[in-house]
Amino acid sequence: MVNIAIIGAGRIGAVHAATVASHPGARLVLVADPFGENAATVAARYGARSTTQVAEVFAAPDVDAVIIGSPTATHVDHIISAVGAGKAVLCEKPVDLSVVRVDECLAAIAGHESSVMIGFNRRFDPTFAEVHDRVRDGEIGALEQLTIISRDPAAPPASYIAGSGGIFRDMTIHDFDTARFFLGDIVSVSAVGQHLDAAIERAGDFDAAVVTLTAASGAVATIINSRHCASGYDQRLEAFGPRGALEAVNHLATSVRSSGRGQSSAAGPYLDFFLARYAEAYQLELSHFIDCVTSGLAPSPSIFDGRAALVLADAATLSASIGERVAVTTAPELIATAR
Amino acid sequence: MVNIAIIGAGRIGAVHAATVASHPGARLVLVADPFGENAATVAARYGARSTTQVAEVFAAPDVDAVIIGSPTATHVDHIISAVGAGKAVLCEKPVDLSVVRVDECLAAIAGHESSVMIGFNRRFDPTFAEVHDRVRDGEIGALEQLTIISRDPAAPPASYIAGSGGIFRDMTIHDFDTARFFLGDIVSVSAVGQHLDAAIERAGDFDAAVVTLTAASGAVATIINSRHCASGYDQRLEAFGPRGALEAVNHLATSVRSSGRGQSSAAGPYLDFFLARYAEAYQLELSHFIDCVTSGLAPSPSIFDGRAALVLADAATLSASIGERVAVTTAPELIATAR
Amino acid sequence: MVNIAIIGAGRIGAVHAATVASHPGARLVLVADPFGENAATVAARYGARSTTQVAEVFAAPDVDAVIIGSPTATHVDHIISAVGAGKAVLCEKPVDLSVVRVDECLAAIAGHESSVMIGFNRRFDPTFAEVHDRVRDGEIGALEQLTIISRDPAAPPASYIAGSGGIFRDMTIHDFDTARFFLGDIVSVSAVGQHLDAAIERAGDFDAAVVTLTAASGAVATIINSRHCASGYDQRLEAFGPRGALEAVNHLATSVRSSGRGQSSAAGPYLDFFLARYAEAYQLELSHFIDCVTSGLAPSPSIFDGRAALVLADAATLSASIGERVAVTTAPELIATAR
Amino acid sequence: MVNIAIIGAGRIGAVHAATVASHPGARLVLVADPFGENAATVAARYGARSTTQVAEVFAAPDVDAVIIGSPTATHVDHIISAVGAGKAVLCEKPVDLSVVRVDECLAAIAGHESSVMIGFNRRFDPTFAEVHDRVRDGEIGALEQLTIISRDPAAPPASYIAGSGGIFRDMTIHDFDTARFFLGDIVSVSAVGQHLDAAIERAGDFDAAVVTLTAASGAVATIINSRHCASGYDQRLEAFGPRGALEAVNHLATSVRSSGRGQSSAAGPYLDFFLARYAEAYQLELSHFIDCVTSGLAPSPSIFDGRAALVLADAATLSASIGERVAVTTAPELIATAR
Repeated sequence: MVNIAIIGAGRIGAVHAATVASHPGARLVLVADPFGENAATVAARYGARSTTQVAEVFAAPDVDAVIIGSPTATHVDHIISAVGAGKAVLCEKPVDLSVVRVDECLAAIAGHESSVMIGFNRRFDPTFAEVHDRVRDGEIGALEQLTIISRDPAAPPASYIAGSGGIFRDMTIHDFDTARFFLGDIVSVSAVGQHLDAAIERAGDFDAAVVTLTAASGAVATIINSRHCASGYDQRLEAFGPRGALEAVNHLATSVRSSGRGQSSAAGPYLDFFLARYAEAYQLELSHFIDCVTSGLAPSPSIFDGRAALVLADAATLSASIGERVAVTTAPELIATAR
Repeated sequence: MVNIAIIGAGRIGAVHAATVASHPGARLVLVADPFGENAATVAARYGARSTTQVAEVFAAPDVDAVIIGSPTATHVDHIISAVGAGKAVLCEKPVDLSVVRVDECLAAIAGHESSVMIGFNRRFDPTFAEVHDRVRDGEIGALEQLTIISRDPAAPPASYIAGSGGIFRDMTIHDFDTARFFLGDIVSVSAVGQHLDAAIERAGDFDAAVVTLTAASGAVATIINSRHCASGYDQRLEAFGPRGALEAVNHLATSVRSSGRGQSSAAGPYLDFFLARYAEAYQLELSHFIDCVTSGLAPSPSIFDGRAALVLADAATLSASIGERVAVTTAPELIATAR
Repeated sequence: MVNIAIIGAGRIGAVHAATVASHPGARLVLVADPFGENAATVAARYGARSTTQVAEVFAAPDVDAVIIGSPTATHVDHIISAVGAGKAVLCEKPVDLSVVRVDECLAAIAGHESSVMIGFNRRFDPTFAEVHDRVRDGEIGALEQLTIISRDPAAPPASYIAGSGGIFRDMTIHDFDTARFFLGDIVSVSAVGQHLDAAIERAGDFDAAVVTLTAASGAVATIINSRHCASGYDQRLEAFGPRGALEAVNHLATSVRSSGRGQSSAAGPYLDFFLARYAEAYQLELSHFIDCVTSGLAPSPSIFDGRAALVLADAATLSASIGERVAVTTAPELIATAR
Repeated sequence: MVNIAIIGAGRIGAVHAATVASHPGARLVLVADPFGENAATVAARYGARSTTQVAEVFAAPDVDAVIIGSPTATHVDHIISAVGAGKAVLCEKPVDLSVVRVDECLAAIAGHESSVMIGFNRRFDPTFAEVHDRVRDGEIGALEQLTIISRDPAAPPASYIAGSGGIFRDMTIHDFDTARFFLGDIVSVSAVGQHLDAAIERAGDFDAAVVTLTAASGAVATIINSRHCASGYDQRLEAFGPRGALEAVNHLATSVRSSGRGQSSAAGPYLDFFLARYAEAYQLELSHFIDCVTSGLAPSPSIFDGRAALVLADAATLSASIGERVAVTTAPELIATAR
């Protein structure tokens, strides 16, 4: 039985709390949030303690593992404290908005990197995972082209955009991780940003973008992003190889198809909300984390994966700005060397 | 080179004329229609002669084969005359609305039945033919259930309905032939008719119906008909067996799919017109006929197939009326004996 | 807070127990099963009491509502006892295999029929419910034809078949309820059974069947059943009306599509297991029951719906045997009169 | 009646000849090919004259219009001669492999540019044209992202590759035109080439590529190419805007879907051959050309469109080589100025 504390009782913290509660191998023992009311509400629902003092989490002897769902700027401090206290960590993405800061974190936890898992939940989505595993098992031959279409239902408010680190660090970061999940080491990045929404442009960000990543293998991933999509949360990918292609199409609320005058076989809109679209992914992600804590194995995606996605986001930001392909390295061993 | 005459220069006659003209192994030499203007127009387009006197067709020494596209009531007379004159015949369905009359025809052409092909064009549709051939080749194991959904885009005028012989002889007759194409000998028929359209009911007919046919093999075919369909000409079937199912879905004008607020992946309407939906089928049907005339092989579907479909239509009409399953036989050899 | 007891700690009992446990408005207090170990296991998981004596359920003052998931033959007795003890009841389908016995039950609980809900879970499936609601709201005009394709992944053992009451009472009963859910009162039934599986034939049953139901409205439902399906649990329906059609296609585990040499866009198999396919339906069904108990409203489907499905199953059994369309009545008020 | 001569009696010449022959407003009068036998065969089939001397085409007083289907290197000479002789021209793509040579052509025919149509047949494909027209009519709002997936069934021989001008000029050129068809003026190009096939790499070319084009409007087109595809000729596109998306999916030979153990609803492979996939497009393209010749209107796509696609191919070639986004202009008026 793994005893778990959650830092951050917001939307994502509440999701994790419910998952912990329903997991036969885990128990929620503590919820920490400066907004004490949130912490208390979530804790009460599952019979856990609550606190407004994060330090209590690290000090608590009955806490085996910590889930960090607090604001991005606090991630590195909490990782360092938790690892220092001997706790396993599942930290929401991104690790931080600065690679320098991630490297400080890596330096601080040196030798204990494998205690930290980063919450790139899409790797655990049954649809994406099935495509990944069938590719890995050779069904389409060596992967040659990966196409990711990833569009949010609607743009966040401009105030959020301003502090988000930009579309590549805030939104594409998931797709960068997905690309690495499929392609492994990435060697160059080329990005084009779009200014179609004046409010987002005033907030200093792109509202849409296309990024191409070249892998060490010669494969190329293309990521197509937009901050809006009329039909819902558009989450597709296609893996293409010499023997065929595997495609992940959008998830829908029901399997109804309608036909009438002028059209036929129309499906419903896409699932609109990331928590609905990735509900199973969040559960399977946490299950993997708990399994690793229980068994002592290193969880994946690792903090090196978290760093790599951020490196790609930085490179895309630069490429979109200067109009040049940017060389990168995302292999963990090279990162270790580079530090 | 097969020299062909066409009797009936209406819509279907014009289609056959164009197909003959584009076939490298055939030549259109004569078009006969009491409406001389129609005959002349079609004939002129392809450099053929025209006449208002059908007798000229049978007397013409340069005519090898005759396509009969005149009104149903004239079919039997024309078949008898053409076969008597030593011509091969492709006759539009149905042979006649009366089985008695078909049997008179069979008696009159005894020994030459294989000179006559009946135009059940759907057997030549590439989609239906592919399903048929894959079933025949064992892909789904022994066929157990065949489901045919067949709906017209819109009902014909009540005046047409009145003289049509009823929905089973006029519309379902194609589906009866399709069922026999897949299932072979049919042993019983059960039918339910629907009166949803008051005008058609006043004309003495059903506007929708469901028919189940039991085959000698134990397989069952279900036919679902309606005289109208908002999305176009609804022509589907599904063959089901122990190892899987093969489905023929509707044909569309283009492969565009649209997504927007409230729905996704909507296809266009079905092809609306039978000549568009079955354009390839008409060409392949005629090609088969010409090949048979050239090679001396017996064409299929035969006049026995034409009779069998009519027997099923009669049985369905009776079953819908008395509310009982009706035993039938559709095997050619039994028909021959029964005569 | 509704306190619930479950009678029957088998597969379906365990599903209901989990649903009760996760429902904010309900609490599992007691589990009864002659196999005490099963009862204890399920009860322990959710902090409830257990017993081998069903009578304890009816006697328990803290039990508000009873879920009956015991063998069919015990349903009526348990309903009568529970209603007699003032408990609300959710009883799994079928009420019984005998209409006479159901009528005895109705006599015994006269005046309290609305305390009883029958577990036709498919009415609560979000996909079927969406089709139902869009039809009800007029999207396709007046419903004219309903086509239900319902095939199990694999046949149960012959030993089960022998005591099942036959395919119409055991399997089609769900589809009869679905047909009534869409069409309302049914006035005639016509059925054809198939003997494709020798072992099932020896057990005295059909392994496949086609049933047509005519509604008082003139609409016709067609039900196509098989005891096996290579691709999984085949659960589809199509509602057709003058303005269009609404189709429920099969549910799949993921949204992956594969393409390769010789084929494209292949989806995975259908969900194979009824508990997976109808997982949401079971939850929403129980939610509706709890809401009704809490609010005092009559739940639906009612015991009259349970009786009506059985009447249709009897009629189909008779029709398949004698080859005639069988007149029925399924309207509750008529049933009441008939009793 | 437009009298037409065809230069080049190869595969594409034969296709055009058949289309001319079946067009009510055109007549094939002359076929020219240095391989006299080819010319004679094609000419004989449709009752036209043939010659091995191209000069005869330009000198023939009964020739109104010329279709140029000879090798690329001869296009410019033939265009200049034909326009000089007062003939209308439909020239296969590309105009030439060199923009300089195209500009020489433009100088030579100055004032008569509108006599020349370039054979970008995909603009006439009913599926792509429907997407284009629905976008133009505002269905999805202002176009923001266009994604083109275009993969050949199999790579041509290395000998062909060597003289092809490279993947961007030989294969992507169609997609560049499609991008302009949807997006209008393009202002920058960014390309990544892939070396996955060693034989093609030795021939000095990429076998796969991803190109992003930024339009003056701010919209971005992404083109994903490969020289091979296991499922056939992969020709898809998706237009995305604020109000929705329109997708063109692949065309298939039939509408059969198969289900079995382990999978469901598998479609057949894509149409494998460009002449099959774009059969209707070739007919509609020629129809447009004949209509323009008859009416005196300027045909589209124009020779400026042919030049623009080549400019984009050059820019992509450069971008893939230097790893930088390349600024371009494709607006005809700017081209005119630049010359």
